[in-house]
Amino acid sequence: LGIGTLIANNVYDAAYPLHDLLYQEWARYGVFYKFQPIDLIRKYFGEKIGLYFAWLGLYTEFLIPSSAVGIIVFLYGCITIESDIPSKEMCDQRNAFTMCPLCDKFCDYWNLSSACATARASHLFDNPATVFFSIFMALWATMFLEQWKRLQMRLSYFWDLTGLEEEEEHPRPEYETKLLQKKLKNKNITTESSNEAELTHMFICLQIMLAFSAVFGVIVYRITTAAALSFSTNETTRSNVRVTVTATAVIINLVVVLILDEIYGAVAKWLTEIEIPKTEKTFEERLILKAFLLKFVNSYASIFYVAFFKGRFVGRPGRYVYVFEGYRMEECAPGGCLMELCIQLSIIMLGKQLIQNNLFEIGIPYLKKLFRKLKDERTEVKEMETNQSKNPQQWDLDYILEPFTGLTPEYMEMIIQFGFVTLFVASFPLAPVFALLNNIIEVRLDAKKFVTELRRPDTVREKDIGIWYNILSGIGKLSVIINAFVIAVTSDFIPRLMYQYAYSQNGTMHGFINHTLSYFNVSQLKDGTQPENSLFAQEVSFCRFKDYREPPWSPHQYEFSKQYWAVLSARLAFVILFQNLVMFLSVLVDWMIPDIPKDISEQIKKEKTMLVDFFLKEEHEKLKLIESFIAHDKRKRRSGIKSRRTRAASFSHCHRSPKGSFTSFSSQHTVV
Amino acid sequence: LGIGTLIANNVYDAAYPLHDLLYQEWARYGVFYKFQPIDLIRKYFGEKIGLYFAWLGLYTEFLIPSSAVGIIVFLYGCITIESDIPSKEMCDQRNAFTMCPLCDKFCDYWNLSSACATARASHLFDNPATVFFSIFMALWATMFLEQWKRLQMRLSYFWDLTGLEEEEEHPRPEYETKLLQKKLKNKNITTESSNEAELTHMFICLQIMLAFSAVFGVIVYRITTAAALSFSTNETTRSNVRVTVTATAVIINLVVVLILDEIYGAVAKWLTEIEIPKTEKTFEERLILKAFLLKFVNSYASIFYVAFFKGRFVGRPGRYVYVFEGYRMEECAPGGCLMELCIQLSIIMLGKQLIQNNLFEIGIPYLKKLFRKLKDERTEVKEMETNQSKNPQQWDLDYILEPFTGLTPEYMEMIIQFGFVTLFVASFPLAPVFALLNNIIEVRLDAKKFVTELRRPDTVREKDIGIWYNILSGIGKLSVIINAFVIAVTSDFIPRLMYQYAYSQNGTMHGFINHTLSYFNVSQLKDGTQPENSLFAQEVSFCRFKDYREPPWSPHQYEFSKQYWAVLSARLAFVILFQNLVMFLSVLVDWMIPDIPKDISEQIKKEKTMLVDFFLKEEHEKLKLIESFIAHDKRKRRSGIKSRRTRAASFSHCHRSPKGSFTSFSSQHTVV
Repeated sequence: LGIGTLIANNVYDAAYPLHDLLYQEWARYGVFYKFQPIDLIRKYFGEKIGLYFAWLGLYTEFLIPSSAVGIIVFLYGCITIESDIPSKEMCDQRNAFTMCPLCDKFCDYWNLSSACATARASHLFDNPATVFFSIFMALWATMFLEQWKRLQMRLSYFWDLTGLEEEEEHPRPEYETKLLQKKLKNKNITTESSNEAELTHMFICLQIMLAFSAVFGVIVYRITTAAALSFSTNETTRSNVRVTVTATAVIINLVVVLILDEIYGAVAKWLTEIEIPKTEKTFEERLILKAFLLKFVNSYASIFYVAFFKGRFVGRPGRYVYVFEGYRMEECAPGGCLMELCIQLSIIMLGKQLIQNNLFEIGIPYLKKLFRKLKDERTEVKEMETNQSKNPQQWDLDYILEPFTGLTPEYMEMIIQFGFVTLFVASFPLAPVFALLNNIIEVRLDAKKFVTELRRPDTVREKDIGIWYNILSGIGKLSVIINAFVIAVTSDFIPRLMYQYAYSQNGTMHGFINHTLSYFNVSQLKDGTQPENSLFAQEVSFCRFKDYREPPWSPHQYEFSKQYWAVLSARLAFVILFQNLVMFLSVLVDWMIPDIPKDISEQIKKEKTMLVDFFLKEEHEKLKLIESFIAHDKRKRRSGIKSRRTRAASFSHCHRSPKGSFTSFSSQHTVV
Repeated sequence: LGIGTLIANNVYDAAYPLHDLLYQEWARYGVFYKFQPIDLIRKYFGEKIGLYFAWLGLYTEFLIPSSAVGIIVFLYGCITIESDIPSKEMCDQRNAFTMCPLCDKFCDYWNLSSACATARASHLFDNPATVFFSIFMALWATMFLEQWKRLQMRLSYFWDLTGLEEEEEHPRPEYETKLLQKKLKNKNITTESSNEAELTHMFICLQIMLAFSAVFGVIVYRITTAAALSFSTNETTRSNVRVTVTATAVIINLVVVLILDEIYGAVAKWLTEIEIPKTEKTFEERLILKAFLLKFVNSYASIFYVAFFKGRFVGRPGRYVYVFEGYRMEECAPGGCLMELCIQLSIIMLGKQLIQNNLFEIGIPYLKKLFRKLKDERTEVKEMETNQSKNPQQWDLDYILEPFTGLTPEYMEMIIQFGFVTLFVASFPLAPVFALLNNIIEVRLDAKKFVTELRRPDTVREKDIGIWYNILSGIGKLSVIINAFVIAVTSDFIPRLMYQYAYSQNGTMHGFINHTLSYFNVSQLKDGTQPENSLFAQEVSFCRFKDYREPPWSPHQYEFSKQYWAVLSARLAFVILFQNLVMFLSVLVDWMIPDIPKDISEQIKKEKTMLVDFFLKEEHEKLKLIESFIAHDKRKRRSGIKSRRTRAASFSHCHRSPKGSFTSFSSQHTVV
């Protein structure tokens, strides 16, 4: 029975050490350019929170070079945009590519040059430098993790954590209380808890399905709205269909992500509490795994959809894939799916950061605090009558603050951001820049929160960041294969390369657009799907669509052409090459950077030697002490007289020895 | 200056502890079914050699399940051979596929059914069970490494190695001697040593080129001999060309591998000695890396060639690829390249094992011993005259034995075997069986060698198997991608699957052989390459060859057909799928098996607690001791008399304390 149990039993409301606000110079935005005073943070908040801020600091530092390279890659795109032949060809009015209508009946044929703007914009992100950048970022992730291991080791050493062993963990008071309650209610505990585990699994599946269905709902929204808007008789509405639909859909996506994120945080906590894990550590690990799974699916489901599924099940003119009785599957914009992926990614990432930072991390705590204060003031009025004490005590002031609920949400936010920075970096090279801007604020925001808005948390000694490291390393590994697929499948990098070196007549990119467009004989459009009131109507006999298919005059009309399979082979070969190359380089980086910094390992070795020397000396001294006692004894027996001075000296000697021993013992405990 | 320096200076011939042959029951073939007495081995030979035999034992044990599965997979091939439609179709005389001639001018057209036997044999290894088996073996490798980590941890614990730190390493006596010699000769050492590093690199490149050129030489031999034999007028010679050439070529390959293997061992050692590494450890690591690199290339170069290059640059009828003025590039046998890979692999693996075991590990040491004995007897005659002592002393008997030259060759042999078992297991599922048979002998052979044929080595304390673990884990990782490619590219697994599900009319394999053969119009054969004296001559207008190419009546005559690219896509997709699936499963296995066995980690924790308790108790006792002295002192001052008995007791008390302290200190050193 400790104070924790008493709190769990609602005997007390809260228990926390009183705190002061010493570190105002850390928790201000004005000092964003300074390194964090990690040692002071550790001294005040304990090792666990110290490690979090050290990690956040290192991550933010590492974002600086990747931002720089990201900006260079983006600038490369900007500079080369004028010399990019495919986008020039697309914009050229003389190349009158008459495209097949984008919807049945109400959409007209359209000219490819009308998609000029998106084609030019897509070049900003879809250029050869992106390939280089995603290799760079994969190695960056490995390097970051290696450097973190080294920093962690260094901190461990300086913070005396090297010898920290997992101690016997005590059961959580909540666990004991609930177990007691349960025992009173129902004696059959074992079957119940297994039932609960099942319930938890079921619930998580349900939640993940919820996230998927949200994504699916947005897809349905996009398809139906696009169809609905194209019925519109208003000309401006119809011409802006794509923009309207995309913009609203992404915003809906973002809102859903934000709401589900909050719900999932609560659900994960609730589920973990239901499970009643025995110790604090298992509680935290289970909570993290659940929350991560849910939030990962929630944040990335829509992005995965755009990257790998959108526009791939459209069918072809004359045989479109229909869903929900008459709605065509959605296609990517004419600029390519990479552009849409980029928009989706940037809006979700930025929106999430801005709204979560501003609204959830600043606004809501402020409101909560205000609400608490108001409530307390009302109760205080009553108390005033009985108590008469007007000056609120420090503990009353602190009680108004929010209780500390663990580092999980802080880490989670950063890990999800790390995912945005690494997983799809091939489609959005500016992600690290925005992450960096966010984090510069985030560090101070978190600092402010810990210093001024939360009750001072109990200090916890931790050797490392635990399961987060594994999650980070898993994301790093996943990013290699995802980026390989984004470059190979989503971007136009491989088709361009193939065209230049295999199909082009003169080794240049001239004619690439024509090569990627297949022909369709409009007379084969099904009845009722032909465009009404076409402006082109009279002249059009063939329309074009983006795919590698046999032309109408081939014996295997509209089957996938040989080019399709050749390009697919090249795409897959690229994935294999990219994945294995990057994995090999990562292993090399991992192998070249030692996990323990050299100075630290030398220091540890030196201390171990010193310790051995110390022990030997100590033993030697002890022996000497005993010998001196014996000698002294003998002498005394001989003389029978003892001067006061000598005894005092020997006493101090005695006293020093155990103290010295204790020091040595504690130092052994520290170093080992 | 130690005994090592004296040996390095040739002051002494050798220095080693006298040994006895206690462990006859371990070093006999008769006890092959028994577990090895690892603890006794460790006690007699030291930890390093103990770890080698423990590792070898675990590896051999692990080969048992993989052998069992390998045999099942092989039996599956045997059982399903009768129901395999493609090989039936190939053997069916009614399917008269007239194949294009295998060489220019002198070869006739031939009937595919004449390759019936190889087709049937190739089904034994090229069936769907093989895919399962290579996934199994990849996981097996991971599991083996995990279990080894656990066993190593357990042995570390029981052998008191957990606290073993890398001690300050002393420079090798050879290093010091040679350095001294150099200093005397030439004062400019630094430039010279960098020169030597360069020389080493150059030499290694040279050696690797030698291995490649050996493989290349065998290829040239095969091409030229095949051509030469086909000129022969003798009918039987001509009909057996393929068998003769393949058999002799593989044997040449094997002999080259065996000879180069010995040369490489010596070269690696020589190169490392030239570099004069400072410590014993760096010497060993450099030697291992060099030797591994050379032997790896040597053992696998020819196998890699057969797996991934042979038969891929043949060209096509009418436009064959010619090398050396008129020799056609070699093709795989009609049964497919997998069959040839299997033959190549099995002969090199078995030949290497048998010859290396019998000849190099039993024969040559025996001869060496005999030679030494003879030489010594001759010198002994002279000594007899001066010395008169007839009975040879134990050190004389031991001096006749071979000196111990390190574990590197033993490990190397097993690692190369591990490569055969894992890297190409998709093509030869029986590899683990042969490895198992070999290892059962190998364990006792090595035991015999260590016990009876070598001078007893100096014991070395080692915590782990060092760099070998990294090499094993690297081979394990490499095996995933190599097996993926063997299944996808070398075997017919993917084309069969594709045919069954995409091209077949009725979902069966009927017509597969016809589908894989392209047509060639024989009138388009270049002049002088048409077969002379053809038995078919009159009737043949089209001949067939194995490739996916457009038929002569297509507008894109003989270009790769759409099927080619589709099958290639499927192959590459399979590689991606296989690699990522197996890697994911491996990570899962790695994650599920804890590195430290639970009982050991608990034991370590318990001992740590005990140690802390012991220290506290010790300190307590010391304090008490001092107090008792003071009290005793006081009492004596009061009484002035001291009995003999009391003093004796207090003395023994004094004496116990430091001894106890020492014990505690050493135990601390052990556990930490």
